[in-house]
Amino acid sequence: MTSINPITFFGGTIGLWKVVQMHTIVGDPLATVSYVDAHTTHHPALPSTTVMWTLKGTNTHPRYAERTEVNALQAVQAPLQRPEATMACLIPIRKSAAWWALAQDERRKIFEEESQHIALSMAYLPAIARRLYHGRELGEPFDFLTWFEFAPEHESVFNALLVKLRNTREWTFVDREIDIRLQIT
Amino acid sequence: MTSINPITFFGGTIGLWKVVQMHTIVGDPLATVSYVDAHTTHHPALPSTTVMWTLKGTNTHPRYAERTEVNALQAVQAPLQRPEATMACLIPIRKSAAWWALAQDERRKIFEEESQHIALSMAYLPAIARRLYHGRELGEPFDFLTWFEFAPEHESVFNALLVKLRNTREWTFVDREIDIRLQIT
Repeated sequence: MTSINPITFFGGTIGLWKVVQMHTIVGDPLATVSYVDAHTTHHPALPSTTVMWTLKGTNTHPRYAERTEVNALQAVQAPLQRPEATMACLIPIRKSAAWWALAQDERRKIFEEESQHIALSMAYLPAIARRLYHGRELGEPFDFLTWFEFAPEHESVFNALLVKLRNTREWTFVDREIDIRLQIT
Repeated sequence: MTSINPITFFGGTIGLWKVVQMHTIVGDPLATVSYVDAHTTHHPALPSTTVMWTLKGTNTHPRYAERTEVNALQAVQAPLQRPEATMACLIPIRKSAAWWALAQDERRKIFEEESQHIALSMAYLPAIARRLYHGRELGEPFDFLTWFEFAPEHESVFNALLVKLRNTREWTFVDREIDIRLQIT
């Protein structure tokens, strides 16, 4: 909870994860790529000829979760890199200027009291392991890089979670979102 | 409020701001320098021979202020770069792992309900203009770069504000802090 986890995802012609599908939900698309790889640093040394795009983020402390929610999440959530989790999903997300103009209490109210972001997600743990990376402070094109790992038999419940989240009031503030489905090579 | 303002402060032998005093409040010091300069980018092209240290941060949205507080602050705060504000203070701050392990509601409670960070500061506006830059997500050595500008006749009230803040419960979580007093050249 207290550690800082930087990440750089790159999309290109090589990588641990094979791209199964890329679907632009809203806003500008990303260039289509065949593979995605992840490096746990902001400054990976990469062969630029193999890379079409690079996305950076940092996983740090939770911005909205309260103590009771943090404890409940920690009690049930699964770690990343489980052997059975051979599928993954990278969803880069940007929120609108209207979202970022809100005060903390206004964002929290929309995030949880109205949209039940934590409560909805909780029902899908531990099947869906996830990690949130923040890109806004890095000057990145996406505010968030959301990363999910799951076993193939849980793909349908993962899809159900996304349908619920995308129907919330919180999602009316999302102005760019790309759903990238991945399978381990 | 909605914009993203990156900054790089560098300490060295040249710069807009002459260092009047550097005082380590807690934790490891920074190398003593004669000048501080600020560039509004994370990737300034600098002559490295003149630079002793480089500190980066990003000013974005408020993390604790609620709507009534945001409105009250906006009503009275002064902009940066006022002609009469010939003195400045850069205070890089790091908070402990214990702080970052807290949930949002616990941090907010310490920050405002117990320490009155916003309420205390409000009394010093508009004399003291200020901006907060976040460095934690960038992997920087300091979580915050706090920047203040004021006219010479307000230096004593600025010092009084710092005494109050450093006596709060919030400050018991500060494990590195360096007070760098500056004067425009």
